[in-house]
Amino acid sequence: MAVSLSVSTVKPLGDRVFVKVSAAEEKTAGGIILPDNAKEKPNVGEIMQVGTGKLNDKGERQAMEVSVGDKVLYSKYAGTDIKLGNDEYVLLSEKDILAIVS
Amino acid sequence: MAVSLSVSTVKPLGDRVFVKVSAAEEKTAGGIILPDNAKEKPNVGEIMQVGTGKLNDKGERQAMEVSVGDKVLYSKYAGTDIKLGNDEYVLLSEKDILAIVS
Amino acid sequence: MAVSLSVSTVKPLGDRVFVKVSAAEEKTAGGIILPDNAKEKPNVGEIMQVGTGKLNDKGERQAMEVSVGDKVLYSKYAGTDIKLGNDEYVLLSEKDILAIVS
Amino acid sequence: MAVSLSVSTVKPLGDRVFVKVSAAEEKTAGGIILPDNAKEKPNVGEIMQVGTGKLNDKGERQAMEVSVGDKVLYSKYAGTDIKLGNDEYVLLSEKDILAIVS
Amino acid sequence: MAVSLSVSTVKPLGDRVFVKVSAAEEKTAGGIILPDNAKEKPNVGEIMQVGTGKLNDKGERQAMEVSVGDKVLYSKYAGTDIKLGNDEYVLLSEKDILAIVS
Amino acid sequence: MAVSLSVSTVKPLGDRVFVKVSAAEEKTAGGIILPDNAKEKPNVGEIMQVGTGKLNDKGERQAMEVSVGDKVLYSKYAGTDIKLGNDEYVLLSEKDILAIVS
Amino acid sequence: MAVSLSVSTVKPLGDRVFVKVSAAEEKTAGGIILPDNAKEKPNVGEIMQVGTGKLNDKGERQAMEVSVGDKVLYSKYAGTDIKLGNDEYVLLSEKDILAIVS
Repeated sequence: MAVSLSVSTVKPLGDRVFVKVSAAEEKTAGGIILPDNAKEKPNVGEIMQVGTGKLNDKGERQAMEVSVGDKVLYSKYAGTDIKLGNDEYVLLSEKDILAIVS
Repeated sequence: MAVSLSVSTVKPLGDRVFVKVSAAEEKTAGGIILPDNAKEKPNVGEIMQVGTGKLNDKGERQAMEVSVGDKVLYSKYAGTDIKLGNDEYVLLSEKDILAIVS
Repeated sequence: MAVSLSVSTVKPLGDRVFVKVSAAEEKTAGGIILPDNAKEKPNVGEIMQVGTGKLNDKGERQAMEVSVGDKVLYSKYAGTDIKLGNDEYVLLSEKDILAIVS
Repeated sequence: MAVSLSVSTVKPLGDRVFVKVSAAEEKTAGGIILPDNAKEKPNVGEIMQVGTGKLNDKGERQAMEVSVGDKVLYSKYAGTDIKLGNDEYVLLSEKDILAIVS
Repeated sequence: MAVSLSVSTVKPLGDRVFVKVSAAEEKTAGGIILPDNAKEKPNVGEIMQVGTGKLNDKGERQAMEVSVGDKVLYSKYAGTDIKLGNDEYVLLSEKDILAIVS
Repeated sequence: MAVSLSVSTVKPLGDRVFVKVSAAEEKTAGGIILPDNAKEKPNVGEIMQVGTGKLNDKGERQAMEVSVGDKVLYSKYAGTDIKLGNDEYVLLSEKDILAIVS
Repeated sequence: MAVSLSVSTVKPLGDRVFVKVSAAEEKTAGGIILPDNAKEKPNVGEIMQVGTGKLNDKGERQAMEVSVGDKVLYSKYAGTDIKLGNDEYVLLSEKDILAIVS
């Protein structure tokens, strides 16, 4: 049962998204500077895969606000890190995404 | 995937707002004085971008009470700080906004 | 973006109210005495501004129980202190108001 | 803005009640004895004023189970103490009332 | 305002019940033995009075599962102890009753 | 008020079940081995009595997923231990049952 | 009451699933590398059995997003470990599954 994981085969559950983390140098080059005394420093990444949405009380999936390709700011302490080859990814709940920045 | 962030491209998710923080000297000049023994000192800022609203149990977006351009008092310990050039911004949930002051 | 704050321009959000704190001497003169071993000493103040009410699950604003001009007892440890000139104010959630006393 | 507080002018908010605390000697005389190792010793008092009831999710006030004049047992650690003249009062949420005892 | 408390005049509020605690010797005589390393030792008692039931979201009282006269096992650490003469009683929420044992 | 407790007279309340604990030697003999570093070791038992189900928001009892006679795995740290003669029992909420294993 | 446990007889309750844990060597071979400083390292496993779904407020079972045979990433600290012969299994709530990876 060897698991051969590639970006295209990851299907996040519920309101989760699969995000490619932007390298640190790219982030500051792009204009965003996080103050040293920031309460909670956000990270920047690009959404690669989107879940089917959270199930609400009526048994319906709630539409996601983000889409594949969106660049997003997300809470630094949220989610689960995953490494594929040399790239870093994170599996996040949509509620930990602060804003779309592109 | 360099991210070029400018105020106009930030789209806060859910009930979040993107706020430009007012400089400290301006705040006291404007008349508001926060007592030293304040339980929770509020900050002052101007809303630059507004999210689409929180999704309620019926799957509808709840209308936001604040709009772009509003000057607001918000809880000092809430939100995520972001710096763009020399200006400070904060990404806040609407529930952390105490009052509109303009 | 200097903020010129006056009582009439403060619009509390949600179920919040803007309260002018009564001076301590006035409170005891008026007959109310708080025992030294009180579990939670209430403060007394007058409501200057009232929010539009909390949004319920049906997306409607819930009517506020208090009105501008009401004298109220409120929990001492609740809310956010603000000073305008020589007067003290507090921004409170309606749920932290214990009783109307006038 | 001197506040002249009397029992008849206190209007508790929501599901709160305004209770006159029974003196300790009266309580034991009446037959109720609280064991020394009681997990949570109740107090005894008489209800003087009753709030309009808690607002439920449908925006309606829920009827209160207690009325003015009821003698009640209530949790010792609940509520806010207030002294008027020589008498002690407490502002309580109805959920902290354990039983009507008269 | 002397309070003359007797078992028949106690009306528990909400989903509370008024329970007469069984003496310890009776409990082991009846066959129930609680292991020394029990995670949470239950007590045994008889229900003397029953509240009107918890108010649900629709504003209706939920029927109680227990009745006056039921012998019950209840969580040892729950409720409020009360002593009337030589007998011990406890005011409990129905959710702290584990089982009817008669 | 001596309480004569036997298995057939225990009626669990709400979503609780009354479970006879399987002896430790039987459990390993049956094939299930719990690793020493298990995060949370489950116990095995047989359901002797089943409650009427949890009351949902509409005032209806929710059907139980387990029945009398089911062998179940349940969380080791959940519930209340009871000893009848030489046998050990536990009163559990259905949500602490992990799986039916027979 | 010896319990003879085999994979095919485990019926998880509610929204739980029964997962066969992939051996560590298989996981890295498959391409997924977990960084040493990962906030929360996920595990990989294959779903062997699926519960009937969580009961929602309307008394209906919510459909599960995962099926028998799915390879999944799940939170390392979630669930209950079980060993059958030489194989490791885990009983998980569906909400602790992060993504399907096959």
